[in-house]
Amino acid sequence: MFSRQLARRVVLRVPRRWSHSPAGLAGLNSVTEEDLAHFAKILPSSSILSTLSPSATPSSELEPFNNDWMDKYHGKSTTVLKPRTTQEVSEIVRWCNQRKIGIVPQGGNTGLVGGGVPIKDELILSLANMAKVRSFDDVSGILVADAGCILQSLTDYLAPHHHIVPLDLGAKGSCQIGGNVSTNAGGLRLLRYGSLHGSVLGLEVVLPDGTVLDQLTSLRKDNTGYDLKQLFIGAEGTLGIVTGVSILAAPAPQASNNVMLALPKFENVQPLYKEVKRQLSEVLSAFEFIDRTVYDLAVKHGQGRALNPQDIEGAECFVLVETSGGNREHDEQKLNSLLESLMLAEEPLINTGVLASSPAQFSALWAIREGLTEAVSKEGKAYKYDISVPLNKFQEVVDKTREHLRSKDLLHENAVKYVVGYGHVGDGNLHLNVVAAAYTPEIEAALEPFVYELVASYKGSISAEHGIGVMKTHALQYSKNPTSIEWMKKIKALFDPNGIMNPGKVLP
Amino acid sequence: MFSRQLARRVVLRVPRRWSHSPAGLAGLNSVTEEDLAHFAKILPSSSILSTLSPSATPSSELEPFNNDWMDKYHGKSTTVLKPRTTQEVSEIVRWCNQRKIGIVPQGGNTGLVGGGVPIKDELILSLANMAKVRSFDDVSGILVADAGCILQSLTDYLAPHHHIVPLDLGAKGSCQIGGNVSTNAGGLRLLRYGSLHGSVLGLEVVLPDGTVLDQLTSLRKDNTGYDLKQLFIGAEGTLGIVTGVSILAAPAPQASNNVMLALPKFENVQPLYKEVKRQLSEVLSAFEFIDRTVYDLAVKHGQGRALNPQDIEGAECFVLVETSGGNREHDEQKLNSLLESLMLAEEPLINTGVLASSPAQFSALWAIREGLTEAVSKEGKAYKYDISVPLNKFQEVVDKTREHLRSKDLLHENAVKYVVGYGHVGDGNLHLNVVAAAYTPEIEAALEPFVYELVASYKGSISAEHGIGVMKTHALQYSKNPTSIEWMKKIKALFDPNGIMNPGKVLP
Ligand SMILES: Cc1cc2nc3c(=O)[nH]c(=O)nc-3n(C[C@H](O)[C@H](O)[C@H](O)COP(=O)(O)OP(=O)(O)OC[C@H]3O[C@@H](n4cnc5c(N)ncnc54)[C@H](O)[C@@H]3O)c2cc1C
Ligand SMILES: Cc1cc2nc3c(=O)[nH]c(=O)nc-3n(C[C@H](O)[C@H](O)[C@H](O)COP(=O)(O)OP(=O)(O)OC[C@H]3O[C@@H](n4cnc5c(N)ncnc54)[C@H](O)[C@@H]3O)c2cc1C
Repeated sequence: MFSRQLARRVVLRVPRRWSHSPAGLAGLNSVTEEDLAHFAKILPSSSILSTLSPSATPSSELEPFNNDWMDKYHGKSTTVLKPRTTQEVSEIVRWCNQRKIGIVPQGGNTGLVGGGVPIKDELILSLANMAKVRSFDDVSGILVADAGCILQSLTDYLAPHHHIVPLDLGAKGSCQIGGNVSTNAGGLRLLRYGSLHGSVLGLEVVLPDGTVLDQLTSLRKDNTGYDLKQLFIGAEGTLGIVTGVSILAAPAPQASNNVMLALPKFENVQPLYKEVKRQLSEVLSAFEFIDRTVYDLAVKHGQGRALNPQDIEGAECFVLVETSGGNREHDEQKLNSLLESLMLAEEPLINTGVLASSPAQFSALWAIREGLTEAVSKEGKAYKYDISVPLNKFQEVVDKTREHLRSKDLLHENAVKYVVGYGHVGDGNLHLNVVAAAYTPEIEAALEPFVYELVASYKGSISAEHGIGVMKTHALQYSKNPTSIEWMKKIKALFDPNGIMNPGKVLP
Repeated sequence: MFSRQLARRVVLRVPRRWSHSPAGLAGLNSVTEEDLAHFAKILPSSSILSTLSPSATPSSELEPFNNDWMDKYHGKSTTVLKPRTTQEVSEIVRWCNQRKIGIVPQGGNTGLVGGGVPIKDELILSLANMAKVRSFDDVSGILVADAGCILQSLTDYLAPHHHIVPLDLGAKGSCQIGGNVSTNAGGLRLLRYGSLHGSVLGLEVVLPDGTVLDQLTSLRKDNTGYDLKQLFIGAEGTLGIVTGVSILAAPAPQASNNVMLALPKFENVQPLYKEVKRQLSEVLSAFEFIDRTVYDLAVKHGQGRALNPQDIEGAECFVLVETSGGNREHDEQKLNSLLESLMLAEEPLINTGVLASSPAQFSALWAIREGLTEAVSKEGKAYKYDISVPLNKFQEVVDKTREHLRSKDLLHENAVKYVVGYGHVGDGNLHLNVVAAAYTPEIEAALEPFVYELVASYKGSISAEHGIGVMKTHALQYSKNPTSIEWMKKIKALFDPNGIMNPGKVLP
């Protein structure tokens, strides 16, 4: 009796997103067999996966499309379409708009806010079959590619041309350039190459009525009117489907070096950042913060071991510094004199550090940083808060969150196991991860709006890079004022009056 | 008789802009004495310049606001308001929206497409009195400033903090950061620091109904919904008035060097660019092309003399290369070994070059490049085409235009005196300048649509950085397809249904 009451109380406290707010889905229709018959006129059968007749694909084959990377959000779509051309995308979208069928654009499905999977049974439009490079110019560095190109494959494509994609992230083996653009992904190179709002030069987008908006310029500069493409960068598929991307690739650095530093205390991170920026200047390409707890998790789960266990006794946190530049000798000189000055300082900011001395060691150091997301996910179910706060508040946010959970009696093996922080210091971006035994309404209620209010108190952002998706629609107000939200809604209504494009995502 | 007929023929051929297309102005009202009485309640009298009573300012005092930098576009506004706060801007705009009075936002009035002066008698809203720095954080490098801050004054402000504005242009002594943002100015540092779409982090904008849209975040990363501020970057004041800007300043380089190179032929520019990019890599901060004719004009008008007249005999064009980096020694080594390899090559790409050996010489080399606009304007009335075309077409565009004018018998002292080209090679941006004795309908008719069609034939942009203003509204179609123009119009109608904001500009 008591436990049933409790259960009911818990249900009442469930935040809106657990009910998967169908607000945005009202008035939309499910895919029917008639629709499928129409799609069969547009696409070959190999491009259609559907549990409906006549396709009758086993539903297990749709699972990878219906479930997100974190295994947290679960859609019930009956149908996945995989068009091969912009024209096919356009015809599908036009039909869905007429029939008021919700569409979820899906890239590599590595998003971390549930934006790429359906809320109910919306149609999934996968870009996986649109994966050709359209052109590359090695003088200007401008690359034009289908939206479905996987980030790693673009990196591989550019390598012999001595260029790199100005974007790198742990999910590069699966995420697509169209997904990167749609989430305005930040990642590990932002410090050096800036945001996609600067490096994306053009987009081709299928609008919600099926019109193709061709802004796929391959010009570095074009000031002829409003820069409409910017609206789709970070729109998470709610304004249209990105089918092509023109992006400015960067010349490949001749040399890259990295070093992992162990710090006695968090307070040293900010002065260290200033000093590193000053000394490394234009060759600094990454400055990543890793707290002690998550470092230990990475080591435990075999994501590489950077430093000698004895050496890092008492280290409170770590920083991974990367340089990339055009002259190995010059870069090494800069890095060496930085390390020397750090070690010889009267009150050293660091305990110790390891400088990669081979490509293998370089990769091993990065493996730790890039493996954090995975290490955390092996340890349990992670509540991921990807926030912007002032750098000197990084540790405070982690500590306050941990204390808050402790005060709610939720910090133990069966509830929350770890509260950890890591992130792109140079960008003011902290990944706060709360690792739990399972996703439960209780933990969630303890975390939200607590974390969002904490972020708002620092005038931070509740989503530095992962986006809003379905996870944070109810929390948008913590980072955007009412006027901004009102104007976002007006933009949405202008582009997508029927509300078919990724319904229920981004906007509250 | 014959001459009158000819005159009439010419009038018929006059492009629309000479009649100052009042399409966008239909339905708008002039400022009246009642309006002035209302403004006097919002602003102190020192912030009001008006030829109407009771102000009765002499109209000569309004001239600098009514006439553009090129002395090509002439407005007839009776009233200039100079608000000091965002709140004052908001109240003025709200009133104008109710009264349907057209508003021209004006920054430093250095724009080159007539966008910053009225077409008829629209109200001029000058940002000159909003010129305070709001905040600067030397860890993140984020600067927040009033829109009316002059670019040079921000540069001066940042110098003691060892940072620079990621933007530099010849007009820096007069242009305002709000004007830079509104024109999406490119300038001399774009190659290194990227476009304002990447470095502007937030904006405060007064919308056409008077609402203040506060997106003045001082966060490097914020992925919480649509990036609305991007719409105002490059909107040339047609969607709202920018009142505050948050921008990412760059760490000041420790060392800057430059070198002026003389090339035997234009064909060498592209291979030179590739080689320079390869060798200088991340320290390359400018690569500017100057054709022979405009170089000689700069020298003639005392804009500095870079190279020995004997040494540059036979040189077809020049390139100014700048490096900026964190270590003077390293940069000089890179630059020296570049020059060495260029001079020792079997088939040298350059004839000769001069490396700045002192700060004074560094400035003198830049003075040539930065003085080109002025040199040209001293020589006559310039038709300025600021276009993007593939780098290897730069010379072709200049030559074809010159030949075309010659074929129309317009290439002589009393018509077109020079056709010259210079520009930011790294950005694919050519400034094509046609220097005439006077602005005449005949020359204009020979140039347009000729130049625009030429640009379109290379899939280029008719405005790489200066914008559309009033000068190119009729030519927008050469760079934007009908779908894009239709969506621009929808955006305009959404934000400014009464069409009061910079009427007649940007949109055809
Ligand atoms: C291990 C790991 C590390 C990560 N590291 C980072 C990081 O450092 N920085 C960072 O920013 N993110 C990171 N992420 C999050 C994620 O990888 C990025 O958001 C990525 O850009 C998503 O790309 P995707 O192709 O997988 O998109 P999906 O997950 O398929 O979709 C993401 C969103 O974009 C929309 N979308 C996808 N493709 C299109 C399209 N063509 N047109 C319109 N809408 C589309 C979807 O509808 C959805 O809303 C990481 C994720 C993982 C799993
Ligand atoms: C010598 C010289 C060199 C130049 N070099 C370059 C160059 O290298 N690169 C380049 O891109 N441009 C260049 N320009 C052009 C010009 O300087 C830039 O476009 C500059 O950014 C304009 O700033 P401003 O404050 O003078 O704007 P203004 O000329 O006053 O206005 C320009 C446009 O922006 C609008 N506007 C101005 N302020 C605001 C505001 N606060 N809110 C809303 N709208 C506003 C106006 O209505 C107008 O449409 C040069 C000009 C000169 C004279």
